Amino acid sequence: MRVLYAAPAASWDRWSTHLRAACPEMELLRGGDPASFDALIYAPGYPESGEPLDFRPFTRARLVQSLWAGVERIVGNATLTQPLCRMVDPGLERGMVEYCAGWALRLHLGMDAYPQDGVWRNGLTPPLADERRVTVLGTGALGAAVARALVAVGFEVVGWSASGRAVEGLRVLPGEALAEALGRAEILISLLPDTPETRGLLDAARFALLPRGAALINPGRGTLIVEDDLLAALDAGQVGHAVLDVFQTEPLPPAHPFWAHPRVTVTPHIAAETRPQTAALLVAENLRRAMKGEPLLHRVDRERGY
Amino acid sequence: MRVLYAAPAASWDRWSTHLRAACPEMELLRGGDPASFDALIYAPGYPESGEPLDFRPFTRARLVQSLWAGVERIVGNATLTQPLCRMVDPGLERGMVEYCAGWALRLHLGMDAYPQDGVWRNGLTPPLADERRVTVLGTGALGAAVARALVAVGFEVVGWSASGRAVEGLRVLPGEALAEALGRAEILISLLPDTPETRGLLDAARFALLPRGAALINPGRGTLIVEDDLLAALDAGQVGHAVLDVFQTEPLPPAHPFWAHPRVTVTPHIAAETRPQTAALLVAENLRRAMKGEPLLHRVDRERGY
Repeated sequence: MRVLYAAPAASWDRWSTHLRAACPEMELLRGGDPASFDALIYAPGYPESGEPLDFRPFTRARLVQSLWAGVERIVGNATLTQPLCRMVDPGLERGMVEYCAGWALRLHLGMDAYPQDGVWRNGLTPPLADERRVTVLGTGALGAAVARALVAVGFEVVGWSASGRAVEGLRVLPGEALAEALGRAEILISLLPDTPETRGLLDAARFALLPRGAALINPGRGTLIVEDDLLAALDAGQVGHAVLDVFQTEPLPPAHPFWAHPRVTVTPHIAAETRPQTAALLVAENLRRAMKGEPLLHRVDRERGY
Repeated sequence: MRVLYAAPAASWDRWSTHLRAACPEMELLRGGDPASFDALIYAPGYPESGEPLDFRPFTRARLVQSLWAGVERIVGNATLTQPLCRMVDPGLERGMVEYCAGWALRLHLGMDAYPQDGVWRNGLTPPLADERRVTVLGTGALGAAVARALVAVGFEVVGWSASGRAVEGLRVLPGEALAEALGRAEILISLLPDTPETRGLLDAARFALLPRGAALINPGRGTLIVEDDLLAALDAGQVGHAVLDVFQTEPLPPAHPFWAHPRVTVTPHIAAETRPQTAALLVAENLRRAMKGEPLLHRVDRERGY
C-alpha cells in the first residue's frame, strides 16, 4: 500500500515514526507519481507553495485522511472527490480533559492566593469541589468527556448545549436555559464549536449573568468570546479570572491586552493537540478499511462540512 | 445531653453551627460545672491559659472527641481516663485529594512554562498523564485515596509503604523497594505519617535516586524532609520543583530560603483541613454512640498513641 504524506515537511519527524509503527504494511512516501498512491495523509500547509492541492491526479486514492480535527480548510476544495475523513484522536480528548481538570482545580483551590512573600496565609480554606458549581458549554465528545472527568473529581457540574440532548451521567440544560446555565457557573468552561450560532455568544450581557467573580476557561474556539466585553467584565471584577487558550487572532499579538491583564492567563492553543502516538491508530484503521472497501471512520459529510 | 466545647474560642464560630445542626439533641456549652457534662469536644489550645486541661473533674463524661486528626498533644495527658476519639473527616480526605490532584496536574501540564510575556510558546506538548509516573509514599487512608484519584485522572501511579500491604486498585511496593519507588517517580507525593522511621527519610541520598528534575509534593508531614538536602537538590536541578505544605517549623519563618526559592512553592499547611460541615457528622455519631454505650468510632489506643 503506497501512501503519500501530504502534510508540511516540518511535521514529518513528529508523525512518521508513529504512522509507520501503527501501520507496518504501509509504504509512507513524501512524493512520487500521484496515480500510484492508494491513499493520502493530509494536513493544511501542503504543498508548501501555498496553492490548494489538486486532488484530481490521485486517481487511485481511496482515502484522504486528515491529521486535523477541523477540515474547514480542505472541505471546500472542488478537486477533492475522494473520501475525506477527519481526525478524531483519543489523545486529544484526554489532553483536553487534563487541561480542563488542571485549570478548574487550580482556580477552585485558589492556588494563586499564596504569593511567595514569606507571609503564612492559612485560613483561606476553599469549599470542597462538591460545593463548587461548574457549567460546561458544549456537550459533544470533548465537552462530555470534560464534564464527566470534573464530576469524577467531585465538582457539581451541569452541561449546556443548544439541543439539550441527554448525556449519560450528566445533567444537560437545553438552549433556552442558557441564563440558568450561566447564572450558576462559578467556573464556566466552553467547548462549543465555531458556528454562526456560537460566534460572539459570550458578550457583555452574558458575562453579566454569571455569579460575580466567576472564572472562565476557554479551550474551545476563540470566536465565542467578544474580547472587548470580556476585558470590561474582568476590569469590573464581574469575571474574576479567565484562562484562555484560543483567540480571535492566533498567535495572540504581543500587544494584545490579554497578555498583561492580571486576571487573564494566556496559553498558546495547547489544550487540545493531536498526539501522533494515538492519532496514528485511527489513520492505520482507516487505511485498512479503505483497502478492504469497508465503511470509513469519521468520514466527512461534504454538505454539512464536518 | 450536655456537651462542653473545650476548644479555642476563635474556632467557635466556625464549628458551633455545624455541630448543632448535626446533633440537634445536644446542648453545646462553652462552660459550666465539669461534673455536669456528658461529653467534651476537644481541640488543642484549650484552656486558653496554656495549662494542660485537667480531665479529672469531668466525672460524668463518656467521650472526649478530638476535633483534630492528630492527638499527640493530648494522648499523654495523665488526667485523661475517659474514652478519647480522634477525628477522621471525609472532608479532610477529599480536600487532600483535591490538593494533590490539582498540584500533580499543574506540574504535569507544565502550567508554569507559560510566562505572560507576549511570546506564543506552543509546541511544548506535555505527555499524557498515562505516560507520567507518580509515586505516592504512604498508602493509609489518605495516601490510598490520593493514589486512586490520580489513577482516575489517568496517571501511572504506584504506592509505597513500609508494610507493602495491598490496596485495592493500586500497585503497592514494600519497604525494601524504596529505591524502585523513588527511581520511577517523575512526581513524588508524600503522605507518610510522622514516626521515628519516616523522620528524615527524604535526604540527599534519597533525592539522588529520583529521575533528574522530578517534582515533589509534600502535604503530609514536614519531619520527613531534610530541608537543607532538599535545597541542595533543588539548586542542582535534581529536584525540579517542590510544592511544600508542611515544614520542620510552622509557620515557616519569613527568612526561610524556601520562600524565595524559584523552584519551591510554599502553601501554609492548608492541604488537609478538617471541614466542620463533614466532621460534625462524626462528632454527632460518636455522641449518640457514647450515650447508648455502643462502640465508639476511631477510638484512640492509648498504648499505640493513635
